[in-house]
Amino acid sequence: MAANTYQAGVKEYRDKYWTPDYVPLDTDLLACFKVTGQPDVPREEVAAAVAAESSTGTWSTVWSELLTDLEFYKGRAYRIEDVPGDSESFYAFIAYPLDLFEEGSITNVLTSLVGNVFGFKALKHLRLEDIRFPIAYIKTCMGPPGGIQVERDRLNKYGRPLLGATIKPKLGLSAKNYGRAVYECLRGGLDLTKDDENVNSQPFMRWRDRFEFVGEAIQKAQQETGERKGHYLNVTAPDPEQMYERAEFAKEVGSPIIMHDFLTGGFTANTGLAKWCRKNGMLLHIHRAMHAVIDRHPKHGIHYRVLAKCLRLSGGDQLHTGTVVGKLEGDRNSTLGFVDQLRESFIPEDRSRGNFFDQDWGSIPGVFAVASGGIHVWHMPALVAIFGDDSCLQFGGGTQGHPWGNAAGAAANRVALEACVKARNQGREIEKEARDILTDASKTSPELAIALETWKEIKFEFETVDKL
Amino acid sequence: MAANTYQAGVKEYRDKYWTPDYVPLDTDLLACFKVTGQPDVPREEVAAAVAAESSTGTWSTVWSELLTDLEFYKGRAYRIEDVPGDSESFYAFIAYPLDLFEEGSITNVLTSLVGNVFGFKALKHLRLEDIRFPIAYIKTCMGPPGGIQVERDRLNKYGRPLLGATIKPKLGLSAKNYGRAVYECLRGGLDLTKDDENVNSQPFMRWRDRFEFVGEAIQKAQQETGERKGHYLNVTAPDPEQMYERAEFAKEVGSPIIMHDFLTGGFTANTGLAKWCRKNGMLLHIHRAMHAVIDRHPKHGIHYRVLAKCLRLSGGDQLHTGTVVGKLEGDRNSTLGFVDQLRESFIPEDRSRGNFFDQDWGSIPGVFAVASGGIHVWHMPALVAIFGDDSCLQFGGGTQGHPWGNAAGAAANRVALEACVKARNQGREIEKEARDILTDASKTSPELAIALETWKEIKFEFETVDKL
Ligand SMILES: O=C(COP(=O)(O)O)[C@@H](O)[C@H](O)COP(=O)(O)O
Ligand SMILES: O=C(COP(=O)(O)O)[C@@H](O)[C@H](O)COP(=O)(O)O
Repeated sequence: MAANTYQAGVKEYRDKYWTPDYVPLDTDLLACFKVTGQPDVPREEVAAAVAAESSTGTWSTVWSELLTDLEFYKGRAYRIEDVPGDSESFYAFIAYPLDLFEEGSITNVLTSLVGNVFGFKALKHLRLEDIRFPIAYIKTCMGPPGGIQVERDRLNKYGRPLLGATIKPKLGLSAKNYGRAVYECLRGGLDLTKDDENVNSQPFMRWRDRFEFVGEAIQKAQQETGERKGHYLNVTAPDPEQMYERAEFAKEVGSPIIMHDFLTGGFTANTGLAKWCRKNGMLLHIHRAMHAVIDRHPKHGIHYRVLAKCLRLSGGDQLHTGTVVGKLEGDRNSTLGFVDQLRESFIPEDRSRGNFFDQDWGSIPGVFAVASGGIHVWHMPALVAIFGDDSCLQFGGGTQGHPWGNAAGAAANRVALEACVKARNQGREIEKEARDILTDASKTSPELAIALETWKEIKFEFETVDKL
Repeated sequence: MAANTYQAGVKEYRDKYWTPDYVPLDTDLLACFKVTGQPDVPREEVAAAVAAESSTGTWSTVWSELLTDLEFYKGRAYRIEDVPGDSESFYAFIAYPLDLFEEGSITNVLTSLVGNVFGFKALKHLRLEDIRFPIAYIKTCMGPPGGIQVERDRLNKYGRPLLGATIKPKLGLSAKNYGRAVYECLRGGLDLTKDDENVNSQPFMRWRDRFEFVGEAIQKAQQETGERKGHYLNVTAPDPEQMYERAEFAKEVGSPIIMHDFLTGGFTANTGLAKWCRKNGMLLHIHRAMHAVIDRHPKHGIHYRVLAKCLRLSGGDQLHTGTVVGKLEGDRNSTLGFVDQLRESFIPEDRSRGNFFDQDWGSIPGVFAVASGGIHVWHMPALVAIFGDDSCLQFGGGTQGHPWGNAAGAAANRVALEACVKARNQGREIEKEARDILTDASKTSPELAIALETWKEIKFEFETVDKL
């Protein structure tokens, strides 16, 4: 323990920040990092440096340290563990006192936890694997504007996953053609359609025009089908003022839901937008473009479960999670681990699912898991089995690639979805019996028969880069 | 070239998106990716997939493609190059038509370029190395609120780097003690002091109290020294409303400059704040906390030169660049390469500095390069040589770690800085003659003599992870 007098010079981090006897408090924010140090630096010193650089430390002692109680404010490295199958890296567990963080600010938590420490030369690589948010911090965040139950009630859809589609091609459609594509999808049987993540306000389709034609498409499809319909109008914008302006107009044209790219837009904008949605009775769909820049490398970056937890606190009613089965990266257990973090109220520590801590979410609402990207009708049984009801299954190419067009593609997926839900409710093993269930259902649905024919040859099989 | 009729099914990306004969237009946005593909997938196919997934493509053809001209909107992979010393990876050059992007929206550019494509299974790793922004796009962005010249004029400081310090310890000081620390630094000779990146509004020091005491400190130091002083009040906040509220109050207490964490706050908030600064005659200091999550791994992520270019467009008057010499990651040539991107009007392609394209910035203002992190007075000659005048040199621990306190630490650095500038102006080689220059100057400055004594043993020597 450092004596309370001032000594100029440089100290070893270990002296202050490595505290193996520390028992974390219920109010501490806990973090688990995967650390790959430079050769020859002892693990305890590296772990302590991580704790220091992400909390109160700097490389030189300064006189003003005497004006505060660093023992109270410092982060503490309290445990080190081997990473199975990786002798170069280890897990470091760090406890941060609650008072280090501004209440309700994911922006602030990230600035501390994944700030300067990631550039520290004594580290080769660093990955933030998990955060345990204490309930005392969670209570300071608003979370999802609506959440799973409110969303079901507003959309009047129960007992099954929601069915959606991203409108394709991503870019280049005029607003009127775009509205037509939306209408065809919705009348064919989808619940929701979606702007692609990079559809904002380009010369070929300005946002206001898109919103108007999509608004019409929603109303028309609702009248024809008698079902509630929606389209995620992407309000992501260059600055907050334009973001809010777009959100206001989306409400005006009657969409029940809007959309935000939370990582490229950023946490400050996202939190503001979520609060706007709560105030205005709107739902918020969240796209995760850019996540793979941050989460894909197994040794460096931030695991997606952390970004997902941050989003639940910052606010969103639906979040993309990957599909496990499709063209994009993912691993089943790990995906289910963070899907739990989005939807459940309490998730116990379970390393087999990548959850490093018990996590109590209290009564903060849940977020729908969105499975989207490279999926088609043959994946439906697996998706229903993996994701369960509180999910939104989105087939973009897998709807609009149907040879008879969008409405037929939508119908095919709706029939397939309902067949899978019915089979599951009857107690059948839908992943194993997938072929039978789909083939049976296609007997009364020529759209589904053609869809099964169209996509039967397609597989996307590469090893996932990051496995548990 | 695909015939204009609809064929359901899956196509090879190469057919459409690999165009080795293409000559990029002046208006194209160009990108260079370092690509590490899965084994056995041909380079051209992988490059084409990157072009497709970051522009108009999806994995399945869809009927609505007939409603647009994909030949016009698609991204094109037009060149492939070896990565020197790395047989696993290659550089892919992609040209994107200008109309794919919303004007003035860095958020939108990133959503396209570093969105879903990074999660694509056919890739093992992907790194965005550089973007060439066409001048036609740059003209749609506001850029720095003031810029280098305006900042010099407002602060009335010419012919030398600005001298600053981050107030330490990062967290735990009360607002009044914090104000004292600021005052001591400023009266001792610094131009500017700085909130640490994670000082936002915590229980031990709420932002309003900090702003008030810092405002007082600035006024007092100005009166005593007759020099213009400033402190970067960090207005980073959980949501845009609170960010603007803090910015308004910073203006009220008379600080000429505020601060934002552009990566954790996000580009949407940052662009809005930069516009607010332009309107309100305030300068904007930008911290880069979280950059190393994104830019540090040599095979995966986004190079910092891209983030720096994006910041110049989104808006900021000073940006952290690393120090080359200190405790944090960096490499001299590469750093100078992106420092040029911040400050110059035209930067030619130069692979030895990591610049993959000619970049014309037109008349958009320049951004001060901020060297900060783990530096002390012995680094001063190297810093002046490396960064030149349009920089801000910040010594946090290297000011407040002085055994006689902040004012003495500030005086030591100011004397050292002026000695180095004078020696340089006399034509001396200040890096080589560092010891002489500093020792000479210390003869008339006991503060500097003690500083030289205090920090003489400290080195931070590890290999940089990412080299050119
Ligand atoms: O274009 C998309 C889906 O279209 P398609 O169905 O045609 O592939 C993307 O928005 C993905 O959903 C993003 O991936 P994640 O959901 O994994 O983020
Ligand atoms: O605390 C800091 C400096 O304090 P000290 O001088 O005591 O090290 C940081 O804000 C670094 O500047 C961040 O690094 P980059 O500037 O490289 O982003």
